[in-house]
Amino acid sequence: MLELADILDARVRVAETARRTPLDYSHTFSAMTDAKVHLKQETFQRTGSFKIRGATNRIETLSDAEKEAGVVTASAGNHAQGVALAATKSGVDAKIVMPENAPISKIKATRDYGATVVLDGEDYNEAQAKAHEIEETEGRTYVHAFDDEKVMAGQGTIGLEIVEDLPEVETVVVPIGGGGLISGIATAVKEQKPDARVVGVQAEGASSVATSLEKGEIHTLDSVDTIADGIATRNVGTDPFDVIEKHVDEVVTVSDSEIAVAVTHLLERAKTLVEGAGAVPLAALLSGAIDYDEDEIIVPVLSGGNIDMNTLTTVIMRGLVETGRYVKIRTVLKDRPGALGDLLGVISREKANIYGIQHDRTSRDIAMNAAEVEVDIETRGHDHVEELLAALREDGFDVEVLV
Amino acid sequence: MLELADILDARVRVAETARRTPLDYSHTFSAMTDAKVHLKQETFQRTGSFKIRGATNRIETLSDAEKEAGVVTASAGNHAQGVALAATKSGVDAKIVMPENAPISKIKATRDYGATVVLDGEDYNEAQAKAHEIEETEGRTYVHAFDDEKVMAGQGTIGLEIVEDLPEVETVVVPIGGGGLISGIATAVKEQKPDARVVGVQAEGASSVATSLEKGEIHTLDSVDTIADGIATRNVGTDPFDVIEKHVDEVVTVSDSEIAVAVTHLLERAKTLVEGAGAVPLAALLSGAIDYDEDEIIVPVLSGGNIDMNTLTTVIMRGLVETGRYVKIRTVLKDRPGALGDLLGVISREKANIYGIQHDRTSRDIAMNAAEVEVDIETRGHDHVEELLAALREDGFDVEVLV
Repeated sequence: MLELADILDARVRVAETARRTPLDYSHTFSAMTDAKVHLKQETFQRTGSFKIRGATNRIETLSDAEKEAGVVTASAGNHAQGVALAATKSGVDAKIVMPENAPISKIKATRDYGATVVLDGEDYNEAQAKAHEIEETEGRTYVHAFDDEKVMAGQGTIGLEIVEDLPEVETVVVPIGGGGLISGIATAVKEQKPDARVVGVQAEGASSVATSLEKGEIHTLDSVDTIADGIATRNVGTDPFDVIEKHVDEVVTVSDSEIAVAVTHLLERAKTLVEGAGAVPLAALLSGAIDYDEDEIIVPVLSGGNIDMNTLTTVIMRGLVETGRYVKIRTVLKDRPGALGDLLGVISREKANIYGIQHDRTSRDIAMNAAEVEVDIETRGHDHVEELLAALREDGFDVEVLV
Repeated sequence: MLELADILDARVRVAETARRTPLDYSHTFSAMTDAKVHLKQETFQRTGSFKIRGATNRIETLSDAEKEAGVVTASAGNHAQGVALAATKSGVDAKIVMPENAPISKIKATRDYGATVVLDGEDYNEAQAKAHEIEETEGRTYVHAFDDEKVMAGQGTIGLEIVEDLPEVETVVVPIGGGGLISGIATAVKEQKPDARVVGVQAEGASSVATSLEKGEIHTLDSVDTIADGIATRNVGTDPFDVIEKHVDEVVTVSDSEIAVAVTHLLERAKTLVEGAGAVPLAALLSGAIDYDEDEIIVPVLSGGNIDMNTLTTVIMRGLVETGRYVKIRTVLKDRPGALGDLLGVISREKANIYGIQHDRTSRDIAMNAAEVEVDIETRGHDHVEELLAALREDGFDVEVLV
């Protein structure tokens, strides 16, 4: 099983490629949670996620012959970029297989870090099969994203940094996908500070670990569904599971809505872009999924920031809706002069701000002398939304809330 | 005129309320510009912008009687939050007048920092008149956002930090709105390192300083128009202008499109949220508005990160369009089975990804047997967009580019 010594060994190698990321006390999130929250800002890591740590340790410990033969892996996400840059830095040739529909931005980033990208297969499983085929035919080493002790040891260097920068840490909160990150961090933290607590967080739509721990064996989900694509795995790896059983105190889950709220708060308040998977530890704190004492010293590990810009705009809107700061309504107006003005008058009286209006007389669902109108509105919170809707209904508008 | 000694004096006061912000070397932006780019991350400042530095120095240097009487100001932006927190930290009562249509998020943030918010007036000028009325009737001190040497000295502490953290700095690039920030930084930098260059950047739609320097007197614009609301001022202040004439080497401008690209790059690559006004120094580097030598050591001052989430989503879309990574097209299909499939087939063949489709048969502008379709598409760059459009046209689609 993974040991502290493996992680201490990994440290020197990882330091050559990866950045030591900041651990920043957050006034904002401390005030919001009544805890002492220090953010481990792995989102500022090179390639935008922690994956480069594990990939570097794996590639740097290959034999000379293995390095000469090159590496291969399959990934449509952060692991692809981590392996690409780690291999380039070590002078090792890397082939990364990605599904044909992989986001263009990820393909480009992986190429820019110096890897050869092979587009093959409809989904991740087909890409993985292709990567194993390349492993055999070309004699390359397959770099697994999590089920590998060298990879786990590399990710564990995050735990060393946390304990060094904040020796008084009481609780570390870590995302779980395949389990590579938490098994490394838990080993580093628990073997140095046995009294500290390590809590894992999964997305509700991809939560196999609690069941696995109950059964005492790895449970595999039939399918996964979450906006946090970085942790959308059907099961954890064998090596990580052993460590999780030994060192992880508790595993909790958060919903996609809670994740969207956390991403939005991190952006608005901490000015930091964190992807869904990276935001689950903070989501668990903000949503009350984790019990803690007042002023407890807690480190959420913000593991990465690679979120597609298009996805981000969707997540932000969801975050604003969830916190009652945005609402979209639909109503039907009698199509006479002044009807729209009356509607807007009520919204203005209630001190809500209008972002946008769509006014349409051609919809087939409504009478010929009526007009359908949709209004995007900025609001102050859930109470304000309720007040606004009540005021509109009182003035005779039949209002439907769209989001 | 402002002197280095004033800024050194300010430093102790500012340190009690404001954070010393990081100066981070950026691999990404160095590679993109062939310079050595170090980002001054003032976006991570408390309240999300540099304004708290100047406000703190102003309030802390009030007499006891003045502190007792409280302060007042008018602002719908970063200055409001800066004054609110600086006053609260100094135990001074603050009233902030904001226009009635101020964004709810800014009103809430200012209240949360402990100030009384007065909503008055249709625009900034009316709010300012109200603030001066309160100044007179309540005997409060009016805290100007930039035209005040104590405020300028507070902002100048950023210059001290830059020279201390990076003594070999060659060029510092700073946004100009009212001129408070650049006059402080230029004084701190030039009086310590006369050979270093200080370059100011304005938004094209709010650029009065170049003309002011030519005329040798402050030029006031009739109106301003830019997405960088933090620097949307009609003129610089009197005290800042004297310093700019003496210490600033050059003033350049950037367009709203260039600003949107810089904001998007900072978010995607540096995982950092920077508002339009804060991104103009990087926009000037990326767009070629500033001449510099290869490997020149350059510090863009990213002055703040308070951007409304709704504005942000618009800016991101603009940034993606400008870099050829997103395109929205409209075409009219004969409304027969398979027409839409043919269109999507071409897009897929060209390896572009579809984000969204709007398909509409009810538009009044087209024939009864036709359907209008709009498609949102992810692309790899400007060349890819051109190839895609050519392929669609070759296959007989009459394509209009919407954004």
